[in-house]
Amino acid sequence: MTSSKRVLIVGGVAGGASCAARLRRLCETAEIVMFDRGPYVSFANCGLPYYVGNVIRNEAKLLVASADLFKSRFDIDVRTGHEVVAIDRKACAIAVRNLVTGEIRQERYDALVLSPGARAIRPDVPGVDLFGVFSVRTIPDSRRVREFIDEKSPKAAIVVGGGFIGLEMAENLVQRGMSVTVVEKADQVMPPLDFEMAAFVERRLRERGVAVRISDAVAGFAHSADGRIVTTTEKGARITGDLVVLAIGVRPETSLAVACGLEIGPTGGIAVDDCMRTSDLRIYAVGDAVETTDVVTGKKQIVPLAGPASRQGRVAAGAIAGREVRFRGAQATAVCGVLGLTVAATGASEKALVRAGIADYDRIYLHPGHHAGYYPGSKPIHMKVLYRRSDGRILGAQAIGEEGVERRIDVISTAIQLGATMHDLAEAELCYAPQYGAAKDPINLAGFIGENALSGDMPLARWEDVGAAFVLDVRDPGECAAGMLSGAVNIPLSELRGRLGELPKDRSIDVMCAAGQRAYYAVRLLRQHGLDARNLCGGWRTYEAMR
Amino acid sequence: MTSSKRVLIVGGVAGGASCAARLRRLCETAEIVMFDRGPYVSFANCGLPYYVGNVIRNEAKLLVASADLFKSRFDIDVRTGHEVVAIDRKACAIAVRNLVTGEIRQERYDALVLSPGARAIRPDVPGVDLFGVFSVRTIPDSRRVREFIDEKSPKAAIVVGGGFIGLEMAENLVQRGMSVTVVEKADQVMPPLDFEMAAFVERRLRERGVAVRISDAVAGFAHSADGRIVTTTEKGARITGDLVVLAIGVRPETSLAVACGLEIGPTGGIAVDDCMRTSDLRIYAVGDAVETTDVVTGKKQIVPLAGPASRQGRVAAGAIAGREVRFRGAQATAVCGVLGLTVAATGASEKALVRAGIADYDRIYLHPGHHAGYYPGSKPIHMKVLYRRSDGRILGAQAIGEEGVERRIDVISTAIQLGATMHDLAEAELCYAPQYGAAKDPINLAGFIGENALSGDMPLARWEDVGAAFVLDVRDPGECAAGMLSGAVNIPLSELRGRLGELPKDRSIDVMCAAGQRAYYAVRLLRQHGLDARNLCGGWRTYEAMR
Repeated sequence: MTSSKRVLIVGGVAGGASCAARLRRLCETAEIVMFDRGPYVSFANCGLPYYVGNVIRNEAKLLVASADLFKSRFDIDVRTGHEVVAIDRKACAIAVRNLVTGEIRQERYDALVLSPGARAIRPDVPGVDLFGVFSVRTIPDSRRVREFIDEKSPKAAIVVGGGFIGLEMAENLVQRGMSVTVVEKADQVMPPLDFEMAAFVERRLRERGVAVRISDAVAGFAHSADGRIVTTTEKGARITGDLVVLAIGVRPETSLAVACGLEIGPTGGIAVDDCMRTSDLRIYAVGDAVETTDVVTGKKQIVPLAGPASRQGRVAAGAIAGREVRFRGAQATAVCGVLGLTVAATGASEKALVRAGIADYDRIYLHPGHHAGYYPGSKPIHMKVLYRRSDGRILGAQAIGEEGVERRIDVISTAIQLGATMHDLAEAELCYAPQYGAAKDPINLAGFIGENALSGDMPLARWEDVGAAFVLDVRDPGECAAGMLSGAVNIPLSELRGRLGELPKDRSIDVMCAAGQRAYYAVRLLRQHGLDARNLCGGWRTYEAMR
Repeated sequence: MTSSKRVLIVGGVAGGASCAARLRRLCETAEIVMFDRGPYVSFANCGLPYYVGNVIRNEAKLLVASADLFKSRFDIDVRTGHEVVAIDRKACAIAVRNLVTGEIRQERYDALVLSPGARAIRPDVPGVDLFGVFSVRTIPDSRRVREFIDEKSPKAAIVVGGGFIGLEMAENLVQRGMSVTVVEKADQVMPPLDFEMAAFVERRLRERGVAVRISDAVAGFAHSADGRIVTTTEKGARITGDLVVLAIGVRPETSLAVACGLEIGPTGGIAVDDCMRTSDLRIYAVGDAVETTDVVTGKKQIVPLAGPASRQGRVAAGAIAGREVRFRGAQATAVCGVLGLTVAATGASEKALVRAGIADYDRIYLHPGHHAGYYPGSKPIHMKVLYRRSDGRILGAQAIGEEGVERRIDVISTAIQLGATMHDLAEAELCYAPQYGAAKDPINLAGFIGENALSGDMPLARWEDVGAAFVLDVRDPGECAAGMLSGAVNIPLSELRGRLGELPKDRSIDVMCAAGQRAYYAVRLLRQHGLDARNLCGGWRTYEAMR
C-alpha cells in the first residue's frame, strides 16, 4: 500500500468497526475515515432488547468503543451524524451529508467499505406509524421504548414477529412486568428452527404466560378511545395493548449500492466475492447488507449476525491491505435466550435442506440430560441433528434446553466447520465431571445414534409415516398410560425377549419409547431375530412436539 | 460369531459395563457374564466426592444400572461379590472366587475383557491405616467417610493430593463445614495443568480458606492424645485434623494381567492395540488399567477417565463382534469444579510437550470475559493455548474461570480431534447473544492471537526471558500504579504514536498491558515503524500467575 491510500468506511457498527481497527493494525500509513449517520459507532446492537428490559441499565455500557477511542488508539477519523448519500464510482468519491449542518461534501477514496447494515422491516399496514408502535434497531430507538415504559407503565404489549429478536423482546417486556402477545405469520415461532423444535419454545412461552398467535399477521393498528393501541390481525383478532414492538425481521440496506449500480445478489443482499469485494474492485461490503455463501447448502444467503459481520470486516481489511484472506462463508450459528430456555442452532435446518433441494440427509432426535443424571439438577436438552446419509457428514443441529445448550451447539458448529461426520461426534472427548456432563456426553450420544443409523444397525422410521408399519411401544405400562400412538402395541423392553412371538414377521416394525434409547435396544434385539425393526427416533418426547 | 461364544468381563464399572451392553446390541447370541468383586456394577465413580459432600444425598442415585437391569434388558449375567483370581490363558479359563462362600470356580471364555480399573495409591508412611484415614474409590469407601462425618462432626480435614480428585474432595469437605488443608508433593496443585495456570486455582483455594501446602508430602499419621489425627509432613509441618482423605492418584490394577503374562507397557498399564486387544488375541482390556496413545504427543499414557473408558468398552465390544473398530487414542480432556471455579483442559500441557521432547510449539495466553462485557455478569476466563509453530496445529488448551469454561475447552477438544489449526479457531462461528458469548468469542480471540503470532505480525516474547529486552508497558498510569515489571517504561497506548522517539531502535521491545490486547495494538504500531516489538502475551494477569 502506498502511504497515501485513503480508505472510507460507511457504517461504524460490527463489520465496519472491525474492518477499521483491523486495517490500522495491518497498515499504519493509510488514512481511515469511518462515517455513520447515527450518533454512535461500534454500539452493541445485540444488547438493545436487554437495554429495553433494563437488564442492561446503563446506556453507556452499549458503547463498545467511542469515536475518541478510535482516534487515540487507532488514529481513525470517525464522523458520526454523517450520512453517505451517494457513491460516484468513476470519480472514486462519496457524497457525505453532515446531518447537523446539512452541508454535503465529496470525499475521495482509494478503497471504500460499505457496512450499512440492515433496516427493520415495517409492515405496510394502517397505523404502523402511531405513537407507541416501535422498532428497536438503534440506541435512540431503544431509549424511546424505555422512556415510554417509564412514563406510561404499560400493562400489555404486542410483539410482531416471533423470531429471535421478537422473542428476546417478549422476554424483556415480560421482565418489565407486561403481559405479552406474540403475533407470528409463519406456523411456528423461531422460523430458523424446524417446526417440531420450535414447538418446545412455543410451549415455554405459553407456560410463562406469553400469548402466542401463530399463522396470523397484523393487519393494522389504531388508538382506542382510552388511548391504548388496538392491533387487528388478518384472521380478525383484536388485541388491545399499550405498546407494540415490530420485530418481523430486517432487510439489507442496499440503497447506496443499488444507486451506484453495484451488483445485488438473488437474495437481495450486495453481491461480494470471498474477499468481500463487490462488483467494483475498489468497493468492499460487509455485514448485514451482503449475501454470502452458506457453508452447508452452498446457497447464497443473508446472515444478519454480529459474528460473521465481524469476521467479514477483518477479511475486507486484510484484502485492502494486500493480504491473502478469504471469508469461508457462514453457517448461521445462533443462540437466543427465551424465558429460561436457551435455543441454539448451527448449519442447515431440515427445511433449509429441503429448500435447497438437498434430499441426501437423515435426521435424528435425542433428549439427553445436560449432565449426569445422578448429580442433582440435570435438565433435558432437546436436540435434532441432520447429517448426510451418503457419508455421515454433519449438516446442522438445533438444541433447546435450560442448561448446556450453547456448549453442544458450539461443538457441532466446530465439527461442521471442520467437515466432521457423526462418527467424529461419537468419538469426541469432552469435559466430564458430574456437574458438567456425562461419560457419554449428549454429543457422543448424537454420534452413536447417527453411527447406528448409518451402519444399518438401527434404521430410522419417520414420524411423518407413522401408521404405515406396525408400531411397538417398549415403554413400561405406567408411562404408556399418559398417552400412546393409536394402534401401537405395548411390550416393555424388559419383557421383549420372551414375547417375540407377538410381533409380525412380515411387516416393518416401528419401535418407540420415551426418548429413543430403549427403542434402540429393542431394534437391535428384533433385527438380530430377523425382524425389520426401525426406531421412531426421539420417542414420545419428539412425537409430542411433532403434533 | 458362533452362537456359543462366551464372553467374560472382569470389572463392571464404566469400560466393562459399556462393553457388555454394547456387545449385546451387536450380538444377541453370545453368552455374556460380567464379574465384579464389589457389591455393585456400573456405579458412578465420579460422583463419589459429591456423595461425601452430601450434594448427592441418595446413595441409590450412584447406581447407574443394576444387575437386574443388565439381566432383564440385556440378558447379561452379572456376578457381583465375585473376584477373578487367575487367568489360565492356555485353557481359556478364569478362576473366580465367590467372596461370600469362598468357593473358587473355573469359567471358560471365548473372549475375555479385563476392566479391572485402578486402585488408589496409598503412601507408604506410618499410620496410613489409622481409623480416620480414608481413600475414596468405591461406594462403601464413601459411605464410611459419610458415616464418620455424621458421627464425629469433624472440624478439620487434611486432603493428601492436590489433583482433580483431591480438590473435588477438598470442595466437598468445605461443603460439609470443615476447614481443609491440602498437601501436594508437586510445586503446584492440579498437576495436569501448567504451573502458571494452576496458580489461578491455588489462589481460589486460599481465598476460600483452604490451606495449601505445595512442595511437601505427608510423612506419617498418628493419633493425638485427644483422639485427633496429627499429620506430619516431610518438611516438618504438623497438621492436626479429624479426618484425612488420601487422593494422591491411582495405579492401574494389573495384577491379574501380570500374573498371566500379558504384556505391560512402559507406563505400567496393560498394553493394548487400537482394538483394545492385549498381547493375547482372546483377551481385551479397557479403562483405567490400560495404556493408550496420546493423540497429541503420540506417547503412551494412562488416562483414568470415564469418557475414554466408555469409548474403549464400545471398541472392545465391536472388535469381539467382528466389527471394524478402532480406538483413536485419548486427549485427556478433563474438567473439575473447585469452589466456584471451573478448571478444564484438553490435549497436551506445555510440560507434557517438553516431557515428550516436542519443541515445535508456541503458547498464548488470554483472559477474555465469558460473554460480552456490556451484559452484566461477565466473568473472566483465563486461557492458555498451545499450538505447533510450524503449521499452527492446536496441541492443547487449559482454561479456568467461573462460567463458560467447559464450553470453550469442548470446542478446542473437538478442534484438536479434527486436526484443526489456530486459523480454524479464528474462523469459528459460535453461539453469540450477549448473555452467552461475544461477536468475537474467546475461541476466536485465541485464534486471532495465534494467527498474528504465526504470521509474524505479532511475535511473542517469553515471560521467562523478561528483562533481556526493553520492556514497554502500554497500560494507563492508574493501572501501573498497582504494580509494574521492574525496569519497564510506561507509555499509554493512546500516547504511543506521539512518543515513538522515546523507544530504542537497536533493542527488542517487549510490550505488555493488562491482558495482551493493547500490547498487540502497540506491537503492530511499533513494528510498522520498524521497531522490533514483541508481545508479552497475556499481560499483567499472566505475569502475576507466573510469579
